[in-house]
Amino acid sequence: MTEMTRSVIADGAGGSDVLRIVERPLPACGPNEMIVRVHAAGINRPDVMQRQGNYPPPPGATDVLGLELAGTVESVGEAVTRFAPGARVMALVASGAYAERAVVHEDVAIGIPDAMGFVEAGAVPETYFTVWSNVFERAGLVSGETLLVHGGTSGIGSTAIQLAKARGSTVIATAGTDEKCDACVKIGADHAINYRKADFVEEARRLTDGRGPDVILDMVGAPYFQRNLDLVAVDGRIAQIAFQYGSKAELDLGPLLFKRLTLTGSTLRARPVAMKARLARALEENVVPLLARKEAWPIIDSVFPFDQVARAHERMDGGNHVGKIVLTMTHEA
Amino acid sequence: MTEMTRSVIADGAGGSDVLRIVERPLPACGPNEMIVRVHAAGINRPDVMQRQGNYPPPPGATDVLGLELAGTVESVGEAVTRFAPGARVMALVASGAYAERAVVHEDVAIGIPDAMGFVEAGAVPETYFTVWSNVFERAGLVSGETLLVHGGTSGIGSTAIQLAKARGSTVIATAGTDEKCDACVKIGADHAINYRKADFVEEARRLTDGRGPDVILDMVGAPYFQRNLDLVAVDGRIAQIAFQYGSKAELDLGPLLFKRLTLTGSTLRARPVAMKARLARALEENVVPLLARKEAWPIIDSVFPFDQVARAHERMDGGNHVGKIVLTMTHEA
Repeated sequence: MTEMTRSVIADGAGGSDVLRIVERPLPACGPNEMIVRVHAAGINRPDVMQRQGNYPPPPGATDVLGLELAGTVESVGEAVTRFAPGARVMALVASGAYAERAVVHEDVAIGIPDAMGFVEAGAVPETYFTVWSNVFERAGLVSGETLLVHGGTSGIGSTAIQLAKARGSTVIATAGTDEKCDACVKIGADHAINYRKADFVEEARRLTDGRGPDVILDMVGAPYFQRNLDLVAVDGRIAQIAFQYGSKAELDLGPLLFKRLTLTGSTLRARPVAMKARLARALEENVVPLLARKEAWPIIDSVFPFDQVARAHERMDGGNHVGKIVLTMTHEA
Repeated sequence: MTEMTRSVIADGAGGSDVLRIVERPLPACGPNEMIVRVHAAGINRPDVMQRQGNYPPPPGATDVLGLELAGTVESVGEAVTRFAPGARVMALVASGAYAERAVVHEDVAIGIPDAMGFVEAGAVPETYFTVWSNVFERAGLVSGETLLVHGGTSGIGSTAIQLAKARGSTVIATAGTDEKCDACVKIGADHAINYRKADFVEEARRLTDGRGPDVILDMVGAPYFQRNLDLVAVDGRIAQIAFQYGSKAELDLGPLLFKRLTLTGSTLRARPVAMKARLARALEENVVPLLARKEAWPIIDSVFPFDQVARAHERMDGGNHVGKIVLTMTHEA
């Protein structure tokens, strides 16, 4: 008998009105997997892209939306050793987080620090995995270096600001309004540039005494490719995590050689479980202690009950959020 | 009293006819520098670019041509500890190798293995430093992975083939004639693709069962940018060491994200001495033992006496060389 669970899917492709809450069979739980009663799920831009029909779930994954969740372990497969029923976990999933129950591989789950509630924990995995993997592992940001974060008030942006500051970097953020710039500074950025009022290349160059930032975290894409290449410091690294304004541009890669640059990028969703598991262990070692001591803490923009998932997506579509938008599920006792 | 030494300079910018042998003052020898009696100097493509007026020496460096040399230490600055007069050394220099004497920082010099003569040793530094730094350090090629080398018969190409094979990789090389393809296989490549007869993307894909090579070493530039991005494997790396056919192209960087790629590049010449010194120590540890056991060995295309430097450059201009072209100096006893 297949267990059913209330789940959010996109019925066709389009605006938030295509979102539907339906009863869906819970995926089969493998020997290393756990059934988690979901208490909170973070909303991420890839969810919006999936809703719009531009980011299908990887082969084999459910079409239920949602990439991250926090909840309580309800039951475990026979080979699970890391958690027991009752454990509070947060996890990255390839899909299926917008649901009352979800199946989670034990290796991609992380125990939630005692001081942290489910809402905050549900907002952690996607942005913290992404920032850790791209800014610290792939782009190798180290203490004493300068990071430039585009879109400093996004979930990714706010996480990058906090983690980079907690690990000893100087942080410059860009944002599109003065209010968002203020928010970046409140989150911890040393400097914020309103890219509508100033040229970010010139400003960031001035703020780094002409050297340029050592690492740039970018999700804008095409319109910024050349400007990032021109701005970044000698021996600099550019981490590309999305192409919100396209991936095609006329480029001069000259700086790659002459400044000895590294250009890298990645998405999380398609990575094999083993890779996500390795990242989860790196987060447990390097980031969870910062969360437990509240030296980094997810910035929550707003919380919507499960039934109001369409409003949660509208909030993201509007682009006025600062930090993460979170969906919460209520369960009978 | 300034010591003079016979040196090669470019008198204007142009073909090999602008090369002149002149008496030039030997640069001042700092406390950590050594005066080396040069026995051999390798010819490199950047020398040709400098001759053509397209690659000026870095600020502070002499305009005497030449980036690598092998010879005997004649005298040492007061702080030198690594070598004594009489030592046989090979070294990377920012310029000044095409001369009877050169000033070399002790930290960028490497002792020549007993089994190796000066001609071979003079052909080592530039290509071995470049390949080590770009293929193994920056692009992280490891045993079991596949390397695609463009221009497999060049000094860089032949070195990359040998080092990658000696360290347990599968190597695919490209070259422009069947003869050069045969030479690539003789040097050690598992496969060679004549890029004039076959599409290298299709062929390399076929040779890797559709996965693509893990690392691509490229010096072609613009015409290959997109093709390299499309061909390289998931989690692949592209190391760019020159732009022989330009650095500007219309690009779709989509694969950077979706395949989690790393695009990197560097030139050696402009690096600070400390960076070259670190590389020299890495070579002593990882590469010199391979040379001492002849598991890797510079491929010598041809040797020209110092006075025939113009002919040496013509040989490189012609593009028919396989391996390194070397200049040798004769000294009175």
